[in-house]
Amino acid sequence: MSSLRGLRQPELSKRLYTLIKTQNHAIGAYEQAGKESQTIATQLSEWGESTDDDAVSEISDKLGVLLAEVAEQEDLFAQNLEDSRGVLKQIRNTEHSVAPTRNHKAKIQDEIQKLKYKEPESTKLVTLEQELVRAEAQSLVAEAQLTNITRQKFKEAYDVHTAAIIERAEKQIILAKQARRLIELLDDTPIVPGEERVPFADGDEAREVLNDAESGLKHWTPTVEPIKFYSEGKLGANAMPGNTDSVEQPSHDTLTTAQRRVEERERAEAEEDAGVTTASPVAEKTVVAETA
Amino acid sequence: MSSLRGLRQPELSKRLYTLIKTQNHAIGAYEQAGKESQTIATQLSEWGESTDDDAVSEISDKLGVLLAEVAEQEDLFAQNLEDSRGVLKQIRNTEHSVAPTRNHKAKIQDEIQKLKYKEPESTKLVTLEQELVRAEAQSLVAEAQLTNITRQKFKEAYDVHTAAIIERAEKQIILAKQARRLIELLDDTPIVPGEERVPFADGDEAREVLNDAESGLKHWTPTVEPIKFYSEGKLGANAMPGNTDSVEQPSHDTLTTAQRRVEERERAEAEEDAGVTTASPVAEKTVVAETA
Repeated sequence: MSSLRGLRQPELSKRLYTLIKTQNHAIGAYEQAGKESQTIATQLSEWGESTDDDAVSEISDKLGVLLAEVAEQEDLFAQNLEDSRGVLKQIRNTEHSVAPTRNHKAKIQDEIQKLKYKEPESTKLVTLEQELVRAEAQSLVAEAQLTNITRQKFKEAYDVHTAAIIERAEKQIILAKQARRLIELLDDTPIVPGEERVPFADGDEAREVLNDAESGLKHWTPTVEPIKFYSEGKLGANAMPGNTDSVEQPSHDTLTTAQRRVEERERAEAEEDAGVTTASPVAEKTVVAETA
Repeated sequence: MSSLRGLRQPELSKRLYTLIKTQNHAIGAYEQAGKESQTIATQLSEWGESTDDDAVSEISDKLGVLLAEVAEQEDLFAQNLEDSRGVLKQIRNTEHSVAPTRNHKAKIQDEIQKLKYKEPESTKLVTLEQELVRAEAQSLVAEAQLTNITRQKFKEAYDVHTAAIIERAEKQIILAKQARRLIELLDDTPIVPGEERVPFADGDEAREVLNDAESGLKHWTPTVEPIKFYSEGKLGANAMPGNTDSVEQPSHDTLTTAQRRVEERERAEAEEDAGVTTASPVAEKTVVAETA
């Protein structure tokens, strides 16, 4: 063992332990990217205002709103990766708890081998053989639990992870396409010294862009095909097939794991909004940007 | 002035200077996210191998290849943001170079005002008035240059930026959808103690997934509508309309700025590949992952 980190984890769960650590760093990097991009969006709006060019000012302000929303999606993506990471932890925990069983069985087998060589007539051998049968039974259960949890949770973790990639991508495409409509409104025809710029006349169209972006996000629904889980309703709390009555099972019947998570989030947001404001996030930000 | 940073930049270019700094931090965060995600992809493959479960091993290995490619797209996105940042720097440089002209004019106006009050009969007033006329002419040129560069480069920078968002999104959707096909291949039916897992029989399908992902990436082309540049071929090296003969002009005729950049990159990659290997990035990584 060459690392202190490994000492805290049995060999069996060491690799996933490290992966989960790295995932934490990746999530941190996405959060940071989202934060910096939020700042850039504000700075863009402020720069545009300082140019004293009404077209640049208006377009940069609204572009800032869209870019802030793109940044928001990075943050949401980081949250989804955190969910996926939580699912991987369930495999790691099972690996961690199964490890002593494996070690116990190996230790008894080892003792029997040594004793057979040193004292082949020892009565202790009978006791050890009985102990081994028990250890083997325990081990069979542990290995079944491990493969059941590993396969189900591995699927679930990367169901969430890949759905998060697609969700971020689809929403950012909506936003970036509207941003391009906005950029297109800027007349970049060069002028000669002393010539005045034509006043910006596309304010309505620019506002329309934000409305369309908002409506696009609002009507977004997951397009991914749900992943089929064969363990659906078949895995008990004891991580074995059968008795599912006593434990809450994930329902993958009609929705993807990601869809369920989106719905939970929307419910939470709706409840939050009801208490505070009815304005949508995009519209709210426009107000902030315009009064700033 | 409350920051040392401001001291280095005239008021005019301070805001964009700060935005460009923040953009650098955002790019760093995306590079970091890409790097961590690359590591996770390798760790996933290694974990899968250590499970001694051939289905988990094979699927996690190939999933690792796809996730490494997703990470690669983060890195490419960071490079594109860096390109966009480079275009913004051209506005900042113009702001920086125009600032003394503004200050010069303001200073002469100020001097004239003071002198008119203190010594209204001073002969120096005539000299100053003449100087002001020259400063005003210079200023008119500077302001025309500034608006011409600002509008063209602002459009170009966010053309590149938004096209980069869409490129990353579209490519990651291709990869994530194939990743979901792969996850679907894992049979997560729970087993009872002592029961053997059915050997993994979908190796061909899993390989097919990687081929489809590779082919999807290879055939990806930008779907975005090119942004119309009115300054097309009209902006001279002096940042004024007209004499475009002496200076190389960007050609926005048929391709978007992003498309041109993609083509440049592909040409560079093709040249590089020709010298080293003809294998595709995805296929190469599979080999690496399989021999690791």
